[in-house]
Amino acid sequence: MRQLKLSKAFTLIESGPVVLVTTNDGRQDNIMTISWTMVIDFTPVFAITTGEWNHSFAALRKTGECVIAIPTVDMLDKVVGIGTCSGADTDKFAKFKLTPVRGRFVTSPLIKECLANIECKVLDIIKRHNIVVLEGVAACVDAARKEKRTLHAVGDGTFIVDGRKMDRRKMMASKLPYGA
Amino acid sequence: MRQLKLSKAFTLIESGPVVLVTTNDGRQDNIMTISWTMVIDFTPVFAITTGEWNHSFAALRKTGECVIAIPTVDMLDKVVGIGTCSGADTDKFAKFKLTPVRGRFVTSPLIKECLANIECKVLDIIKRHNIVVLEGVAACVDAARKEKRTLHAVGDGTFIVDGRKMDRRKMMASKLPYGA
Repeated sequence: MRQLKLSKAFTLIESGPVVLVTTNDGRQDNIMTISWTMVIDFTPVFAITTGEWNHSFAALRKTGECVIAIPTVDMLDKVVGIGTCSGADTDKFAKFKLTPVRGRFVTSPLIKECLANIECKVLDIIKRHNIVVLEGVAACVDAARKEKRTLHAVGDGTFIVDGRKMDRRKMMASKLPYGA
Repeated sequence: MRQLKLSKAFTLIESGPVVLVTTNDGRQDNIMTISWTMVIDFTPVFAITTGEWNHSFAALRKTGECVIAIPTVDMLDKVVGIGTCSGADTDKFAKFKLTPVRGRFVTSPLIKECLANIECKVLDIIKRHNIVVLEGVAACVDAARKEKRTLHAVGDGTFIVDGRKMDRRKMMASKLPYGA
């Protein structure tokens, strides 16, 4: 994995991929599947929707940190599997044969098998809407990885795979943040 | 356009498509392009990130309503064009040859050319993060439309088009909300 400039990290989330969010409660690593995410600033700041119903939430709140990992289409069954069992009774890294990797700034693990990982600190929790606001403090990507297509959950049990890419950089030049 | 059950409306946003958000300030219709969106509840409730820097924000705040319209890949140049000019000096419906259609519950117009439209009421504005929380009150889709592929902004001026769909309904059965 090579480090990615923080000014580009928002581009890992803006397209709306399903992500895996890891935590460590001081005893065990855990992972949850989240498709309710949003960029809220380029710096980067992200919002995710989660709450008491996710076992990971207690660790996220207690430690004030997590990692957002970006899986790809070849990992779909792991992504769905992780989202349909609980860290309360499952060691998800073991069950889904994923490799925890030590990050630079947080104790939550990166996931080696993912395309990219963003180390995050909790900036705010907006309880009335179950929104957690996260600041990305480091990001890395596996540039050598062949499969780069991410997944987009529809919410009905189906997933859309990234298709072709279209370039409108010139048209958008006036609106792109520096460094993106 | 046919009405869509409100219990399914979150599935229009969960995959993370670029959307067009319309408002009406009492004098003029306006449209903004937004890719920072998130589902926050199935009922449905959505979050979008916007603020004073968007001309539409004043109308959104004043009227407490908007429409989220979902464009498709054939509309990419309109989507980018709408996002790179301002309603302060441009009639975007006229400039981009889009047709405003009257909704059922809000005065913000639906966009006839879009795949789907969700009429929304503002539930909350979280000023410190520029998050606007919206409740969907009606949704409709153009089921007869051939092009159904949506667009996902990467944030660097490129866009990902919906590719193939993968079905994991059986694996996810325990987690799907009723009606989705």
